Amino acid sequence: MSNSYGERFKITVFGQSHADAIGVVIEGIPAGTALDLPAIRAMLARRAPGNAPYATARREPDLPEIVSGATDGVTCGAPLCAIIRNKDARSGDYDALRTVPRPSHADFAAYVKYGGQNDSRGGGSFSGRMTAPLVFAGAVAMQLLKEKGITIGAHIAQIGAVKDEPFDAVNLDATALDALKEKQFCTQNDAAGEAMREAIAAAKAGGDSLGGVIECAATGLPVGLGEPMFGGLENEIARCVFAIPAVKGIEFGSGFAGAALRGSENNDPFCVQGGVVRTETNRHGGILGGLASGMPLVFRAAFKPTPSIALPQRSVDLAAGQPVTLEIPGRHDPCVVPRAVPCVEAACALALANLIF
Amino acid sequence: MSNSYGERFKITVFGQSHADAIGVVIEGIPAGTALDLPAIRAMLARRAPGNAPYATARREPDLPEIVSGATDGVTCGAPLCAIIRNKDARSGDYDALRTVPRPSHADFAAYVKYGGQNDSRGGGSFSGRMTAPLVFAGAVAMQLLKEKGITIGAHIAQIGAVKDEPFDAVNLDATALDALKEKQFCTQNDAAGEAMREAIAAAKAGGDSLGGVIECAATGLPVGLGEPMFGGLENEIARCVFAIPAVKGIEFGSGFAGAALRGSENNDPFCVQGGVVRTETNRHGGILGGLASGMPLVFRAAFKPTPSIALPQRSVDLAAGQPVTLEIPGRHDPCVVPRAVPCVEAACALALANLIF
Amino acid sequence: MSNSYGERFKITVFGQSHADAIGVVIEGIPAGTALDLPAIRAMLARRAPGNAPYATARREPDLPEIVSGATDGVTCGAPLCAIIRNKDARSGDYDALRTVPRPSHADFAAYVKYGGQNDSRGGGSFSGRMTAPLVFAGAVAMQLLKEKGITIGAHIAQIGAVKDEPFDAVNLDATALDALKEKQFCTQNDAAGEAMREAIAAAKAGGDSLGGVIECAATGLPVGLGEPMFGGLENEIARCVFAIPAVKGIEFGSGFAGAALRGSENNDPFCVQGGVVRTETNRHGGILGGLASGMPLVFRAAFKPTPSIALPQRSVDLAAGQPVTLEIPGRHDPCVVPRAVPCVEAACALALANLIF
Amino acid sequence: MSNSYGERFKITVFGQSHADAIGVVIEGIPAGTALDLPAIRAMLARRAPGNAPYATARREPDLPEIVSGATDGVTCGAPLCAIIRNKDARSGDYDALRTVPRPSHADFAAYVKYGGQNDSRGGGSFSGRMTAPLVFAGAVAMQLLKEKGITIGAHIAQIGAVKDEPFDAVNLDATALDALKEKQFCTQNDAAGEAMREAIAAAKAGGDSLGGVIECAATGLPVGLGEPMFGGLENEIARCVFAIPAVKGIEFGSGFAGAALRGSENNDPFCVQGGVVRTETNRHGGILGGLASGMPLVFRAAFKPTPSIALPQRSVDLAAGQPVTLEIPGRHDPCVVPRAVPCVEAACALALANLIF
Repeated sequence: MSNSYGERFKITVFGQSHADAIGVVIEGIPAGTALDLPAIRAMLARRAPGNAPYATARREPDLPEIVSGATDGVTCGAPLCAIIRNKDARSGDYDALRTVPRPSHADFAAYVKYGGQNDSRGGGSFSGRMTAPLVFAGAVAMQLLKEKGITIGAHIAQIGAVKDEPFDAVNLDATALDALKEKQFCTQNDAAGEAMREAIAAAKAGGDSLGGVIECAATGLPVGLGEPMFGGLENEIARCVFAIPAVKGIEFGSGFAGAALRGSENNDPFCVQGGVVRTETNRHGGILGGLASGMPLVFRAAFKPTPSIALPQRSVDLAAGQPVTLEIPGRHDPCVVPRAVPCVEAACALALANLIF
Repeated sequence: MSNSYGERFKITVFGQSHADAIGVVIEGIPAGTALDLPAIRAMLARRAPGNAPYATARREPDLPEIVSGATDGVTCGAPLCAIIRNKDARSGDYDALRTVPRPSHADFAAYVKYGGQNDSRGGGSFSGRMTAPLVFAGAVAMQLLKEKGITIGAHIAQIGAVKDEPFDAVNLDATALDALKEKQFCTQNDAAGEAMREAIAAAKAGGDSLGGVIECAATGLPVGLGEPMFGGLENEIARCVFAIPAVKGIEFGSGFAGAALRGSENNDPFCVQGGVVRTETNRHGGILGGLASGMPLVFRAAFKPTPSIALPQRSVDLAAGQPVTLEIPGRHDPCVVPRAVPCVEAACALALANLIF
Repeated sequence: MSNSYGERFKITVFGQSHADAIGVVIEGIPAGTALDLPAIRAMLARRAPGNAPYATARREPDLPEIVSGATDGVTCGAPLCAIIRNKDARSGDYDALRTVPRPSHADFAAYVKYGGQNDSRGGGSFSGRMTAPLVFAGAVAMQLLKEKGITIGAHIAQIGAVKDEPFDAVNLDATALDALKEKQFCTQNDAAGEAMREAIAAAKAGGDSLGGVIECAATGLPVGLGEPMFGGLENEIARCVFAIPAVKGIEFGSGFAGAALRGSENNDPFCVQGGVVRTETNRHGGILGGLASGMPLVFRAAFKPTPSIALPQRSVDLAAGQPVTLEIPGRHDPCVVPRAVPCVEAACALALANLIF
Repeated sequence: MSNSYGERFKITVFGQSHADAIGVVIEGIPAGTALDLPAIRAMLARRAPGNAPYATARREPDLPEIVSGATDGVTCGAPLCAIIRNKDARSGDYDALRTVPRPSHADFAAYVKYGGQNDSRGGGSFSGRMTAPLVFAGAVAMQLLKEKGITIGAHIAQIGAVKDEPFDAVNLDATALDALKEKQFCTQNDAAGEAMREAIAAAKAGGDSLGGVIECAATGLPVGLGEPMFGGLENEIARCVFAIPAVKGIEFGSGFAGAALRGSENNDPFCVQGGVVRTETNRHGGILGGLASGMPLVFRAAFKPTPSIALPQRSVDLAAGQPVTLEIPGRHDPCVVPRAVPCVEAACALALANLIF
């Protein structure tokens, strides 16, 4: 079923944007794990809108309540269930949208799929809000992975036309990845971050929105991690990352750019360094045949611009079958990319945890 | 497990490049289905190397033997097992490679994962040869999907720097997709195809290889097809497409290019045409919230250049722990993209069939 | 993972006896289903201890809170999450048991499995209390099955040495199954029920406990329901019924007794009645080759006597490695069988729902 | 899907009684395992009819061909596919049965399920012949389990009214279990075996058949093996054992007999022996809370009498909708129980292997 992911480290996500609560059940956490609750809350805070001008005005404290699976923060082997109450939902904002689908949102397809019975308030179960339990679970996974020597981190690689410095895929280390998490606006280059914020502000001022690209990396993967065919690192990471609303593309290593190269340009020669087999370059993004090569795992995820914009748009009243002009009320992010950084890290962590535990 | 895919229409792929056989078990084909064996063989033939100058010289008849699940070509409800014998394997070519991993191949990671016990001949279970059973299963899925009004087709969108015309994602129809399958070299624009063949020939002449991009589409999907979160169309298609060796990226609709746009540029307004709700443009690639919007589904997969090249490369002898210069013997495709077109169609078909049946 | 069951109608159960809450996530309920909340509460009430002398003195209101997946009791297609708070837990009762496993309880095996980190209070996640969310999910499944013409019901077939009349497996109908649910002590024959209650009272008076057998039936199954081999009705029902603590055996139709018969005695001849193919007898319990035959499905589940008894027992202090005499405090059912009737119905419903939806 | 079992050690069974072949794909065998082919063939031989008077006259050499996953009998990490050709099928015997279902066979339910398109020859995919690939996979699992110190063995506990000595569930050891496998007719007590053979001969002489009970045990399980709720040892073993045609019941430890006892009679006190925690008795069958207790695992499976008997029986011609008298041609076992002993061992092994690897 589609709200679950994983066989060994398994999560089941539930909730809707305006339901009483959203949450997640996690199976597979080793008993006796002392959950790092401050780290979990910190990762959730990175996803939360805060007061950033590029984020929604909806204010959710997002304090997870752990209702089972742990006593005093120590896991007991039973499934961990965490619930996050929805506090600041304003469902009234969505009454007008009941039968008028927002362009490039899930509204229309969900309306047809569920015979109009879906909870469309705030995007229902297709809302970006569903990434809060995803991040909760990802934070738990990242803690467990850290104990295995694996570190995951991401940065905003691009917003609109502004690009950040890419990761150095050969020399990337855990310290650098962790340092990124301390940044309010998560770019490698601060000037690029400033330009991105300006681009977002300009789009917002124009009643518009922006998309972007997040680059994510993981270090410390044991060589050979992953499974063949449908269970490769690329398959599993892609399967998780596309669970984040607005993601429309993913590429590993040199990805689409590599497709334009010759083999002699794209291949990564092997070498020995300090007794360890490595590659001189890392255009393969740390994955060969779906398996970890031991080099840093690097991928990029493309986010479409937030479809909810203030500008009027053409839509259709599904009840009347007539064209209408839609002006979307509600509180929206002019760009979801900054808040999506921990979501991408979480998705990566869930895929890796499921392959490791 | 990673050699299986699907819950409702489910396949289990087995074999290695130089094993006695490769094959697939398919569960979920309705009983009483008269298999269109000529169509299955035709799709396998599109994947087979033939005599094309851009393909390996290995000659495999690739005639599948159906050992269970059908009597006289009509399915009986039991799992269908098809076996394809490996006939033209020259394992001797690979003896020298046993401990010297080919750059950008699975060799090194597989060697470590399986403790040196993996069948490395011809890439073993990581070989592109494993796509033959994938295409067999995909051909069966495409037949079943066709009966539901769904048509899948693909073309070579790019090889090296040469690009084909992209699909018209708004007006694409089934006839156009099926017509592409008749082409020997599957581009929309014949001149582009000719330029691609020349580029491949030039790379081959230089002892080198090329990558490329395949664009795939599906028409006739019922609105709402797909499941939320981890079971969306993007998740499932990506999970299948990354099972094809050499794929390093996937994007749906406007994908990475869309990430650079504003919402007002990337959103697809809704309209009513002939009583049917459609979108005026199709930058969403036929998928909203992971669900089919009713517009043509369109995605692009990036293939890295064939890592096996004739030019000498730097590698490491894993047994000796010493750098060596590798010259790869064996018979290789200077570009796998032309033969991968039916593989991408098959991967798409398997994902859709699993969501529909 | 073991806390989940199903692919099409899927549940994930969480919680421990003395955690803040127990609960369940259900995927696969059709959108727009108006949940019959009174019926759900009534089924939970049949499982609840009430004031019956044969039940624990622990008092739990067991009012489920639906935190997602439904608005005003109508499902929306998103996973339904229901939470039941634990109110009357007295964890202090269990302090002494931390390192002294109760004979025939999960304590010892769980202690070893989880390195002593498991939540052993009240049996933790191995407690009979976990059947509350199971019954909640089963009640939802039974409502959906009812809409398909399928009715499930059960009775206490045996407690200690006292036996109830068995079901008439040939002529059983839905009305009779539903009528059983109105009974406080669920036997077909009231005198047998009275004798059972006396047997339980006698065991309790002696500081002891009793086991028993529950017979469960389902009518209205479409012929052919079920899947081959590992997905047959017997496989799936057994897999669910063994999720109920204390179940140690299951048999379908003539079961173990049939194993002593000749084929001519055990076979059920086919006949035509009112244009419908039926069998004259029903020793096959409504299942042939794992598939529904159209006759009533009938099975029996054996429950061991409650392992928690007041009598002193020999055990071992796991910390000290020394034998000790254990006297179990806490509040226990002298016989769980009466309260387990809706649990068995629920387990059957979950198996059938997963095969039907 | 129902022809697959397992997540970690996973099998997919295919074939029909009269298809070209039957077989199995096994995923999860560690690379570098030298398959003990003589042991595999020996286990298949125990299932094969041989020349025993209680077995079918159908003669199948049952020599498995390993087409992938191993080179020279050593596994390589890729899925192992083994095929067994059907050689001695006499499909003509079944022509008359096409529309006349045999009482207590799968015929009728399968006919309806598959719209008459199922391969009914010899029972098709519901045939006992499907246990040959099950035994093949079970033999591989048993070899791997043996390396972990786990031994599985079974005996005929009952045929008709004749009973063998039960296992000594407290003191059972691996040597005794392995010794049983050397017996042609697998009972603990030879006189009981002789009486069983006579009972079978008498039934056969009367054109009739017999059922029976197989008792199976496993020693060496690590304490705590198994998962909670739906993943307990009982759930998983039951799920596998019911994949064997003709099984209608399963009980663990004291099972149905234990349901009639008091807690003080059925509970197993803990003790310390040689520094190891054990139980003085073993009415729990080595399983507590679904987890291994460290005591021998013991269960019993009930087999119905072979439904194919020579005596005339009442059935219905499904095409004509008319009652008919059926006389079954073909070659049948008057009692499948002796040949089913390795099948039950295999089912147990598959369940354990999936929990361990």
